[in-house]
This record gives sequence, C-alpha cells and structure tokens, in this order.
Amino acid sequence: MSSGTIILTFPDGSNREFDHGVTGFDVAQSISPRLAREALSVTIDGTIQDMDLPITDNAHITINTWDSEDGQQTFWHSSAHLLAEATQELFPEVKFGIGPPISNGFYYDMDFGDHKVTEADLQKIEAKMLELARLKSTFERVEISKDDAIKYFREKGDPYKIDLLDGLEDGTITLYKQGGFTDLCRGPHIPSTESIKAIKLLHIAGAYWRGDVKSKQLTRVYGVTFPKKSMLDEYLVQLEEAKKRDHKKLGRELGIYLIDSMVGRGLPLWLPNGTLIRRTLEAFLRDEQVKRGYKEVITPHIGNLELYKTSGHYPYYAESQFDPIQVEDEHYMLKPMNCPHHHRIYSSSLRSYRDLPLRLAEFGTVYRYEQSGELNGLSRVRGFTQDDAHIYCTHEQLKDEIKNCVDLTRYVFNTFDMQVDIRLSFRDDKKEKYGGDTAFWDRAQSEIKDVADDLDLNYTIAPGEASFYGPKIDFIIKDALGRKWQVGTIQVDYVMPERFDLTYVGSDNQKHRPVIIHRAPFGSMERFTSILIEHFAGDFPLWLTPLQMMIIPVSDQFASTAASYEEELKKKGFRVETDSRNDKIGAKIRDAENRKIPYMLIIGEREQNDGTVSVRRHRIGDIGSLKFSDFIAKVSAEVENRENPPKQK
Amino acid sequence: MSSGTIILTFPDGSNREFDHGVTGFDVAQSISPRLAREALSVTIDGTIQDMDLPITDNAHITINTWDSEDGQQTFWHSSAHLLAEATQELFPEVKFGIGPPISNGFYYDMDFGDHKVTEADLQKIEAKMLELARLKSTFERVEISKDDAIKYFREKGDPYKIDLLDGLEDGTITLYKQGGFTDLCRGPHIPSTESIKAIKLLHIAGAYWRGDVKSKQLTRVYGVTFPKKSMLDEYLVQLEEAKKRDHKKLGRELGIYLIDSMVGRGLPLWLPNGTLIRRTLEAFLRDEQVKRGYKEVITPHIGNLELYKTSGHYPYYAESQFDPIQVEDEHYMLKPMNCPHHHRIYSSSLRSYRDLPLRLAEFGTVYRYEQSGELNGLSRVRGFTQDDAHIYCTHEQLKDEIKNCVDLTRYVFNTFDMQVDIRLSFRDDKKEKYGGDTAFWDRAQSEIKDVADDLDLNYTIAPGEASFYGPKIDFIIKDALGRKWQVGTIQVDYVMPERFDLTYVGSDNQKHRPVIIHRAPFGSMERFTSILIEHFAGDFPLWLTPLQMMIIPVSDQFASTAASYEEELKKKGFRVETDSRNDKIGAKIRDAENRKIPYMLIIGEREQNDGTVSVRRHRIGDIGSLKFSDFIAKVSAEVENRENPPKQK
Repeated sequence: MSSGTIILTFPDGSNREFDHGVTGFDVAQSISPRLAREALSVTIDGTIQDMDLPITDNAHITINTWDSEDGQQTFWHSSAHLLAEATQELFPEVKFGIGPPISNGFYYDMDFGDHKVTEADLQKIEAKMLELARLKSTFERVEISKDDAIKYFREKGDPYKIDLLDGLEDGTITLYKQGGFTDLCRGPHIPSTESIKAIKLLHIAGAYWRGDVKSKQLTRVYGVTFPKKSMLDEYLVQLEEAKKRDHKKLGRELGIYLIDSMVGRGLPLWLPNGTLIRRTLEAFLRDEQVKRGYKEVITPHIGNLELYKTSGHYPYYAESQFDPIQVEDEHYMLKPMNCPHHHRIYSSSLRSYRDLPLRLAEFGTVYRYEQSGELNGLSRVRGFTQDDAHIYCTHEQLKDEIKNCVDLTRYVFNTFDMQVDIRLSFRDDKKEKYGGDTAFWDRAQSEIKDVADDLDLNYTIAPGEASFYGPKIDFIIKDALGRKWQVGTIQVDYVMPERFDLTYVGSDNQKHRPVIIHRAPFGSMERFTSILIEHFAGDFPLWLTPLQMMIIPVSDQFASTAASYEEELKKKGFRVETDSRNDKIGAKIRDAENRKIPYMLIIGEREQNDGTVSVRRHRIGDIGSLKFSDFIAKVSAEVENRENPPKQK
Repeated sequence: MSSGTIILTFPDGSNREFDHGVTGFDVAQSISPRLAREALSVTIDGTIQDMDLPITDNAHITINTWDSEDGQQTFWHSSAHLLAEATQELFPEVKFGIGPPISNGFYYDMDFGDHKVTEADLQKIEAKMLELARLKSTFERVEISKDDAIKYFREKGDPYKIDLLDGLEDGTITLYKQGGFTDLCRGPHIPSTESIKAIKLLHIAGAYWRGDVKSKQLTRVYGVTFPKKSMLDEYLVQLEEAKKRDHKKLGRELGIYLIDSMVGRGLPLWLPNGTLIRRTLEAFLRDEQVKRGYKEVITPHIGNLELYKTSGHYPYYAESQFDPIQVEDEHYMLKPMNCPHHHRIYSSSLRSYRDLPLRLAEFGTVYRYEQSGELNGLSRVRGFTQDDAHIYCTHEQLKDEIKNCVDLTRYVFNTFDMQVDIRLSFRDDKKEKYGGDTAFWDRAQSEIKDVADDLDLNYTIAPGEASFYGPKIDFIIKDALGRKWQVGTIQVDYVMPERFDLTYVGSDNQKHRPVIIHRAPFGSMERFTSILIEHFAGDFPLWLTPLQMMIIPVSDQFASTAASYEEELKKKGFRVETDSRNDKIGAKIRDAENRKIPYMLIIGEREQNDGTVSVRRHRIGDIGSLKFSDFIAKVSAEVENRENPPKQK
C-alpha cells in the first residue's frame, strides 16, 4: 500500500486501493456512473454514512441503493426531513420532535398546537412534499457546537429540539439542512431530494414526547416514499390486500381473540378458535422438542425482584416492565422473561457434565409494559407467551446445539411455507451497552458465524443488534404478501452463567461454567398467530383449522347418515359439525365458505346409496365425489403431512 | 302438641315430644345411658351447642359423639382450652391469643414473652394436660357483660383477649371455665375433661396476631387428642406413614417441583417430571371436556381492577389479593380468579338460546395472597392453576348441566381409586354474607338437592359453607391413608349474570339472564398433585409416571437389542430410557426402584435369543419373562385403561 492511500473491501470480498479521503460518491463513480446516480448512502464497517463524506481508513464498504435495506432506511430518513420541511411551510408554528425511518417508511412527531390535523391537511402536506422534492435540494451536513445549536433552536422556537440537545455532548452535534429546513440530526442522508418521486402520507397517531405519558402528546404523521411512482402503486395494492388479511379484522370474524377494555389494554383473551390454534401450535412444537431431548417446565408469572436484579434486567429495563408489587417485606414483579426462573431450576441441583446439555422448555407467558398508544391487536401486546427454551451446555457442545436450534427453527417455518431470512446480530463498538467479557463475545460471535457457514446459511450480519448478554441469530420470515416479520431467535449467553453462578462438575471433577442458548422459534405465540392469520388470510392449513369440515345433508332424510359420518370423523380426531338447519344447500355452503371451513361434505340420495360424499373445498369449489373411506384417507394424510391449503383458483 | 312441650326431629326423620327447655343431655339419656355418656355436644338446627343448654323450640337435633365431625370439633375445641390451662400452670406469664379446633386436632396461639418453646416444654405441657384431664373438670358457660369481661382480662393481664373484646358487641360475651382456667369463648364445649384420654402435642409454628404481619408473632402449639389411647397409637402410625408420603419430601426426591426463595415464596416451579404429570392430567381432563362439549379459552393473568369491582371481589376480598399495579391511568391486579374474564368473553358477542349451554374451560393460573407462614409445599401456595370452567345455560338446562358436572367429577376421581364424599354447601341465616336474591338462592339450593337426590348421591348438607354468590356441591376425597381433602367444586351462580349484565335472546326474541355454573374437578393442579403424590406415595399409575420403564442390558453385548427395544417403545409413545452404565445389575435395579420406575426390562443372553424381556415391577419384583410384543400389549393396555399400580406385596 502506497502512502496516502487506503484499501476498501467490497461485499464480494474483492478490494481496491483508493486515495485517502475518497468519498463514497467517488468510489461509486469509479464502478459505474449509474451506480453513482442511484447510490443513496454508503455503509463503512457497519456504519451508514453520507455519500460525500471522506473515507480515511481501510474498511469494508457497501454502496447502498434502493435495493438494500440500508439504502431504504437512508431514503426514508431523508423523506422524514422532507415531511418536516413541507409541514413547516404550511404550518409555520409547528414544533418538531423526532422523525426517524421505520421498517416500512417513516414518521415525524410534531406539535401542531391547538390545530387538529385532518385528512385534508395530509393531502396538502403530501402535495407540498412533492413540490419541494422537485426542487432537488441537496442535504447539507453541518457540524456545530452545542451552544450554537441551542441558540439556533431557541431562536427558531423548537423546545423539543432543545430538550434533545440537553442530552447530547458538545462536539457531537450535527445539523442537516435541505431547502429551507434545518434539523438536529446525526444523519446520514441521501444526496438530494431529487430521488423522492412518489409520496404517500398514510395516517396519524398520538405519541407522547419521549414516550413519557406525563409529557405532551404530539401528532405522529406516518408516510412512505419511493424512487418510482410504480412502486407506490404496487405498495398501495399490497396495502389493500393487507387490509383484507388484517389479523384484527379476521381475528374478530373468526373468533380467534378478543381485546376487551374492561379486562385490560393489550391483554388478549384467546377465544375458543384461537385457543385451538394456539394449543395445536404448542403441541406441534412440544412433540418436536420431546424428540430433540427438551424437558418442559412451568414457572410462575411473577418473581422476586432479586431475580431481575441478579440478571441485570432491573432496574435497567424498568421502563418496559410493570411496577413491582410489595408482598410483606419483599417486592415481586410480573415476569418480563422466563430466563431467570430457568436459571434457578438449573442451579437447584448439582449438575454433572453427564447431565448436559440440559434443555429446559416452557410456553411461558411474560408481561412487559408498552404504551397504550403502541398496542396493536395480537402483534403488540402487554402480555405474551414465549415458546421459550434455555439450553445449558458445555463450550464443546455449543456449536452442535446452535445447529440443532437452527434446524428446529427452519423446520418450523418450512411447515408453513414461509421463507426465512437469517440475520446474525452482533455487537458494535458501543461497549457500555453490553455485558460480559470481550473474549467471550468474540468467541460467541465467531462460533455463531462458523455454524452459519457450516450450514451454508444465507445470512447478513447486523452490528449493534445483539442482546445485552450476547450475540444472536434472528429469523425474519416473509409472509404470503412478501412482508417481513422478525420472529424466532437463538442467542448465545456467557453472561448469565456468571451472574447466576451456574456450574457443572466436569469429567476432571472440577467446577466449570456452562454456556446458555436462549431460543424461541415462534418468538411469541400472540405475534406469530397474528402473522399466521395474515399469511394465510384466515385460510389455515387443515391441521390448524378450528373447524375442519361441515357435513351438509341435502334434507332431513339423510340426517342419520350425516350423524354416523360425523361420529366416525370425530372418532378419528377430526373437528367436524353437521349443518342440519332447515335451509337451502346454497345458503349452507355460503355460510361454510364465510366461516372459511376447509371441507364441506354434501350428502344426498346418490351419495347415501353409493357410500360417497360430494366434497367441496373452501375457495376451490366442488372437487367431486369420493368414497367416504377415501375421503378419510385423503384428509388424514393432509393433516399428517401438515399440508398448506391449495392456492386460490 | 300440648302446651309447654316442643317437638324434636332426629336425623333418621323420626320425632318426639319433649318438655320445653329440655337439655341435649336429657334427650340423649332418654335414648340410652350409653349415648348420654358418650355425647360430646348437640347440633340444633345446624348450630352446635353444649349438652346442658336448654332447647326451647321445635328443631332438628343430632347428638354428637366422637363418631361425628361435629363431635370431634367440640372435643378438640375443649382440648385447646385444656392446653391453655396446662400451659398457664407451667408458664404463669403466658398471654393467650386464640385456640380453635382444626381439621385434625387443634392449636393455641400464645405469647411466651422471651421464652423460646422447646420440645421438652411440649412434653411437660402434654403431661400436665393429662394430669388435669384426670381431674374431670366440667366446662362451665358464663354469660357476662362486655365491661366485666374487659375488667377480668385486664386484671388477668391478657391483652390479646382485650383486643378481641374490642370487636365484640355487649350482650354477646360468654366465658368458659374449666379447672383453674377461664377463656373468652363462644363455645360449645364437651361436658368435662374426663373424656380426653390421649394427648399428643405435635409441633409449633410462628403465627402473627390476627394474621397481620405488622403485629407480634405468637407461638402456635399444635396438638391432637383422642377419647382412647389406641386411637392415638393408630394416629401416630398413620402420621409416620404420612411422613414417608409427604409430598414435599417426595416432590424433591422425584424432581416434581421446587420452591426457591429467590423466585418467591409460595410460587412453585414445576420441574420436568412434575410438568409431565401436570400436562398429562390436563390432557386427560381436556379430552374428557372436548367430548362433553366444552370449549377451551386462555385469558391473561392480570385484569383491570374494574373487573373485580364489578364482580364484587374487590375490595371485599382484598386481604387475599395482591396489591394493584398502576399502569398509566388504570389499575391492574393479578387475577385472583378466572370468572370475570370468562364473563367478558360471554358478553363479547350476542348470544342466542341456540348457543347455550356455552361451556368455557381454562387451565387458568390465579394468584392469591397467603401469609408466608401459612405456605406449605404445593398444597398452600400463592399461585395455582384452576381446572376452571364456566357453564352459561338457561334455567331449564341447569339441572342437566349440574348432573353432567357431577358425572365428570366422579369419573375423574374414580380414575384414581379415590373415594368421594359429597357436601352440599348452602347458606345459613347470616344473609349479609351472601349476594343476590333470596328467591334465586332457594331455587338454586333446591335444584342442587334435587340433582343430588336424582343421582342418589350420598351427601351431607353444610349450612354456611356456600360461596358469596351461590350454593355449591363440594367433593371431598379420601386418599389411601383415609385422609380427607376437599378438592372439586360445582357452584350455581345467579348473581354474576346480574352484575355483568349477561343476557341471551330466547326463542321468544326477548332478552333473558343465563345462569352460571362454576366448576373445577381437580380444584387446583398444584394442590391436587400434592394429594396425588401422597395418595400414591410417589408410585404413580403408569399413564402418569414421568419415566415409565428402564431397559437394563446385562452387559454391553446386548446394547444393540436394548437400543432397538428403546426405539420401538418410544415410537409407541412410551417414556423409556436404557441404563447402559458399566455397573452391576443389582445396583441398576436398586437405582430404578429408588426412582420408582414402574417397569425394569432386563435383557441378557436368553432374552436376546428368545425375543423376550425379563420384567420386574417396582415394589413387586420379578414378574417373569415375556415376549417383547406381549410386554408392549400389556403396558399399552395398562396405559389405555389408566390402571392404578398394584398394591405392595
């Protein structure tokens, strides 16, 4: 390497020499002018930055376009600033909170004073945003002293920004300016507003300043933007389809769950159909776990505060926990996680290396505080059930155990025809965020990566996404609409064995620390059920459907045949009813279709004489006449193989 | 009836005329001198009273001897006074709290000042009690004014008695005096100390005055007494046997549950073996419930305080509940029962008479506060899981539904070869204790009695034992040692449908109130499991045993046969392991016996060649050689039929 140059390594592993201080834009330009045009930001050693910032050290570099998540995040972050600029032009008195990108767009929290934001306002702001975007304003980064920043926002009259500045250290303050709008912001941003071609403001919600219910409630405006008009059109079509599949709508229509304000916010009650689905999912996973040597336990829903002080979850995560309850001279808390309970089971008995790996599993319901404004159906709740397990093993067993967990998790999602993306969530340089010894972290991260490579997993690495006690593998599934949901997780933990003083006696007769794997394939039964509902649009696979078949006798004359079929199907373990109402066949079929019952068995003169049933499949229609015994064989195999429902005609 | 006489009706339905003011003693004497000698108290219209009190009205009368529960309660109440008398003689400075009879004896709470009561003290007190009993002191009832009573106990120096007197109304104060001891007491008592022939003081415990942790902790001395020495001997033998079966001892040895102070007092953690037993019991009941048309639901472990205010459980039962938790502008409480949650599910949707009966079932974990001193293993806990269900039905359906519940409950206990006593718990005259309309109560009580008569149940009626919202049927089981445990319950409720405004639309198109049955056969999974452990002394029926069989190859040579047998048994759903340690057969058998594993399958040369297994049954020994396929058939039938384990040789 000649002096004054640096070496940049590209995602494909190739590297090239560049001048010291080269910008992302220069690098992109050196590859192709088109890439330079489409580039939104660059990721340097895991940190996203502006295209025009100088690069001064050897590094890994990724040039982010719309096709990458980092590129989209930069795009939406800049779109939030554009939203603020447009709002400021239309409502000069508005005060600004924060405006980050989110998984599907962005929002900005704003204080409109006494003005109540309407749908018409959103349309006006949207039009103004498009108008401003066409001005092709560049995003300009300004480094500034804290005093000057405070002075600026005081003069501008933005009290929330001053509140934010109070928490920042001098020397780290940056502003970003585009057009007539300047924001307190770490960045990065896209080169200019030019690439924002399509804009949709989606809805508004209330949001407390800094998430504190005692603070003022601001107006949160949600929006999404795209670099092409056709992408927005596609997105809106998908949004419509998503609305039809909305688990809150289907959850009510199909009798799956209920949120009742008198019982409590964010506390779902599982109705009979939902309970059946959940119990079936639990039994499915439990059976797999038994085969794989897990042992089930049940632990209480509260725990002594000492437990969470020992684990370090209290008081550090107190803002997401329910307040402690005093009981005599002790304090108890609704358990926010099952781990400490399992660790105490581990340490309740002397463990030998022969007892390891010990795999303790629990369908454990935990309670975490979420602001009432954040609650959402089954997907964001205050009480949820983890399909939790903790594997206590020796260091030598760790890799095999991680492999087993990956295998189980992939098996689970394959069952539902869900595509799985894998993310290795590692720590970044902010060491204070993480517990434990650096050597352990490095070891755990390299072991996780080894396993991922051994299994030939298609993964991405996400620095800074680790949990505070260790790195993890996160599973992100894609549902039928292509939407991504983070579900299962596998975490490696060298910290809790220290904190809970967990040991085993090795073959050397000495005490050793085990290592712990935390894992939950579904993640949360509540959230996963909400995803299942939307993935299948309520047309669940036969093995999961609460009511699997409806027998429809053409008239009373066939009631006894219907009854004997119902009895036989029930004996085989099927969930079946007979619609013996005095109604037209067409009406009964329509009713069964509305209830999304997979099979309708119609019995009339011919069927009774032939020992057949005329079979209709939900959403497919008539699939012909079958001998009753053949029908049983068919649906038995469908349940046995956990087949997914056929695609719509 | 001539003037100056009354008519007394005996338990067998016969009646006779007696003089107005006749005593229980006179009545007993008129039947037989022996009965008069053995009588301990009389029960007049449900109220127990002294033998020498005059009877002034027509009434139902029962003469209580040792053979009746009322008789034993009187005997033990008087024994508590004898304990106090003896203690006073030996420790003149002692201050007295309360001393009631309990289900198996009695206790007295006493303040010994700085003196720490020892085993030797108990022996001395016991000897003194026997000495005083032989003096044949009579129990003398004295009615006294409140002022005089306060004066008496102030002079005597008994501050706890004065504290008790503060809560009493003038005109209702009675003292009882025997020998040199006088106590504040409602009575009743036995005629004299003469009948107390055998005495055992069992143990001591700490007990807060009035159950208030902020008050002083007194010393609670437990004892038991009998009218015959042989009864005490028999009792002590049974106590020894009970100790061997103690669920706390076996629960630890068999890995069933764990109480860990760091997790919390009274909060059991179910270990793998216990979880397996509990899940198997739940599956057993769930399957029965599905057959009987129940629908399972799952509800959160906390609820808005409004729920319990609506039901009336808060604040009236606040002392047995955990403190509320504030969440934003609401208050939540750990749910002390599942009922209100289910009622809200009922009312979440319009119900028609065609939807009834609606039977909602939940294995619901509830949390109730118990003083830490009262906690005891799995049988007295702060969190427990009810096998709860609520049946919403029309008045016309009520009797059939009660019958179904009785049938299910009896089926459950028959499965375990447990004898069941049935108690109809009705309300007494203290109307303020009960909610709802008198007409509804009368109707519910008569319906329950009709059902009990229709089913030809052998029941007793217990006035004053109803729940606050309705009468109930309680099931009391007798375990293998003949000990009684109250378990399941069936309750009829006309109150909650009003409080929660529950309705259904009848065939007349009008709104009607349903009636609710609350029922739980096991009662609490925790408590029932503690009973099961003691009933079976840990030798669970095969279908419930965590590890059902151990394969013991005689040497390494037979390892592959052992492995193929293990695999086949596992495929059939059996829980089986192979003991392939390099150890002697005898040691392996001993180990399996200690672990109470029902079957040991020994495989050696002969067995391998013949395709047989040499079978040992836990506690029975060698039961001979069986073809492996015959063994599978045998144990399959044993599980299928839920057979109980054979009696010991």
